[in-house]
Amino acid sequence: MNIEIINIGDELLIGQVVNTNASWMAEQLNLEGFKVHQFTIIGDTREHILDAMWKAGERSEVVLISGGIGPTKDDITKTTLCDFFGTRLVFNEEAYKDIESIFARRGYEVTELNRQQAYLPEDCTGIPNKLGTARGMWFEKDIPVPGRTGKAIYISMPGVPFEMQAMMKEHIIPELKKRFHPKSIYHKTILTQGIGESFLAAIIEKWENNLPPSIKLAYLPQPGIVRLRLTGTGDGEAVVRGLVDEQAEKLSAIIPDYIFGADDDRLEAIVGQLLKEKNCTLGTAESCTGGYIAHLITSIPGSSAYYKGSIIAYDNAVKEQMLGIMPETFLEFGAVSSEVVTEMAIGAQTNLNVDYVIAVSGVAGPGGGTADKPVGTTWIAIATPDEVFSKEYLFGDSRDRNIRRAALQALNLLRKNLLGQE
Amino acid sequence: MNIEIINIGDELLIGQVVNTNASWMAEQLNLEGFKVHQFTIIGDTREHILDAMWKAGERSEVVLISGGIGPTKDDITKTTLCDFFGTRLVFNEEAYKDIESIFARRGYEVTELNRQQAYLPEDCTGIPNKLGTARGMWFEKDIPVPGRTGKAIYISMPGVPFEMQAMMKEHIIPELKKRFHPKSIYHKTILTQGIGESFLAAIIEKWENNLPPSIKLAYLPQPGIVRLRLTGTGDGEAVVRGLVDEQAEKLSAIIPDYIFGADDDRLEAIVGQLLKEKNCTLGTAESCTGGYIAHLITSIPGSSAYYKGSIIAYDNAVKEQMLGIMPETFLEFGAVSSEVVTEMAIGAQTNLNVDYVIAVSGVAGPGGGTADKPVGTTWIAIATPDEVFSKEYLFGDSRDRNIRRAALQALNLLRKNLLGQE
Repeated sequence: MNIEIINIGDELLIGQVVNTNASWMAEQLNLEGFKVHQFTIIGDTREHILDAMWKAGERSEVVLISGGIGPTKDDITKTTLCDFFGTRLVFNEEAYKDIESIFARRGYEVTELNRQQAYLPEDCTGIPNKLGTARGMWFEKDIPVPGRTGKAIYISMPGVPFEMQAMMKEHIIPELKKRFHPKSIYHKTILTQGIGESFLAAIIEKWENNLPPSIKLAYLPQPGIVRLRLTGTGDGEAVVRGLVDEQAEKLSAIIPDYIFGADDDRLEAIVGQLLKEKNCTLGTAESCTGGYIAHLITSIPGSSAYYKGSIIAYDNAVKEQMLGIMPETFLEFGAVSSEVVTEMAIGAQTNLNVDYVIAVSGVAGPGGGTADKPVGTTWIAIATPDEVFSKEYLFGDSRDRNIRRAALQALNLLRKNLLGQE
Repeated sequence: MNIEIINIGDELLIGQVVNTNASWMAEQLNLEGFKVHQFTIIGDTREHILDAMWKAGERSEVVLISGGIGPTKDDITKTTLCDFFGTRLVFNEEAYKDIESIFARRGYEVTELNRQQAYLPEDCTGIPNKLGTARGMWFEKDIPVPGRTGKAIYISMPGVPFEMQAMMKEHIIPELKKRFHPKSIYHKTILTQGIGESFLAAIIEKWENNLPPSIKLAYLPQPGIVRLRLTGTGDGEAVVRGLVDEQAEKLSAIIPDYIFGADDDRLEAIVGQLLKEKNCTLGTAESCTGGYIAHLITSIPGSSAYYKGSIIAYDNAVKEQMLGIMPETFLEFGAVSSEVVTEMAIGAQTNLNVDYVIAVSGVAGPGGGTADKPVGTTWIAIATPDEVFSKEYLFGDSRDRNIRRAALQALNLLRKNLLGQE
């Protein structure tokens, strides 16, 4: 059984609003084992709505429509729905009472525009909307498709995200589950850092080729991180989950050095959790990353329990003054060097009085590169209670991505050290 | 002339990734006077790609396709394109050289998977990709549609946002403009900080109601910033531009205190420019913003010319040690107070040896709020060569948005001071 989503709204087509409704709907449906076949995003015109509804019904048994209904008068969706289903708008007492009660709660009189919203197509089942004045509408229609039995289901919802979400959770998804009894589906996303998509693909090729047909793999790259998503489908939730977990474990055994977590894990949160478990504190000393590592760490609620602060030493004078780096070290090795980043880590450990320090110095670009140290050259040092070590990396030539890759690499180095991995 | 967008990717259909590519493409096309008719989001299967391409070509003269090309083998888009256009994959020397040079810059050998990317459909024009190994492809095909002359244009791009964006800006949009000569359209976006959307709407209501019909206004709110985009359409670029600029000036006269720039201006870049003009230096002292202000400032290339560094004092001990705040000040006034934030600014000015300092201390949340100082309470101080002043703000209850709003408010306070406005 296929589901399609149609989103109606000019604001989507001019790029003013990002279509989070479709992704939210698709995510919720997938979690329940439904497969979404297509999203179609169209404007607020009669012909386009009719065309999209017809084509969606030919491909899929269930069509979810959001947007195009609401109190403002440019909404032509409802009359178009009547044309499509060969019905007409009639005044619905029950719907009007709902609208009245919403207005009463807000202390207002019902306006004429909102009274109009109680007119609904005669041949639909209304779906209550506790949070707004536009009802959902559930229609069924014969769409002649070879090999298909039964009618296609069309469900129209408002485009306001929280109204649509409440309707989906409380009415639509439960009703679809009763009708269609979907297959079990299970996703697990493995998160890797420090290796590009094509190198990763080469290393895991044999494992990937041996995946059972019920499990699919997708590569989802971001700057500094590649996510590997395993999706299993079949009968019985426990069986599907078991098969996916088994493959995830095999994968972990092949690339243990690159995996830092799964699903919604964030490196900065994992590092924070490890520090809390050890009852240890963290500080940072940043040059080229310019505060981005501190920002990632402090974006986690509760990070003040382990994170003490940072010295962002963009200028060499600040490195000398606040981190105690000797002027000779700059002269002899340059600011982007193992020596300087090591002294930065030690200086921060002392001055911030913390157990662990991440220190970074590099050439983020676009300027500042040399033949010896091109843009992207980055040194990272980690100071621990026992030692200080440093590593050199060569990232790319985009300033934004160099900052992000350096930050994630630095957090992962600390994560591995906290786990005793290197 | 209509344009459609097809996005290929299972990750979109399961809701794991929000489709920002479509909205970005639509926004850029609209800015150039093109109308986007539909977005179609589909999975990575041959039949579905063929069906979507065919239907899009029937509705629209130009079809932009993103996603489904890349080094990993779950990509079947390229062979499907060959089927659709009745052509075959051939090895493209020029494309291979580009791939080699990208790998050489990164210091790697070309892998077999990446070598495969040099195979391109014979009957397409390649579009170079400076940022990745997948080329864009420009096809033209006869799609029999009553009343239409000329071939439909299909352009396939990678789904990686920054690769797609560079291709759109550098090749595809300029080429489409040459072919289709869209109506003159001119946008000017006025950037405001420090006022919410509905308050702004109330202040500028009269001006908005008097806008000429050829000019449209859109509110584009972001945390801490509301952008007001004026779009004029008509014949003759100079005329349209003149009308829009006239309205923008009227608007500026109504809300001078809230406007900080226009179009792609960024507060952190404006502040940097003003500092450069004065030949002055800047440092920061951050508590609740946790490095985000430093990150914004250092995201600007060349910021090392004026930005010296920051002390991120998440912990009070660091505030004492690195910024010289007296323990009594915490005891008497609390960390989120005018007194502490003022001492932070003075301490940073001395220790970082800079002309100007931004200092922030607040309750970002979700924890840490009290009846006196609820979540969102934030003190900002600015130290200048002549004085130190501080202001209190009450932002909302979301940690992420509080951090962002505090950072933008602080940058704007400094901007106004540098301009002698307060």
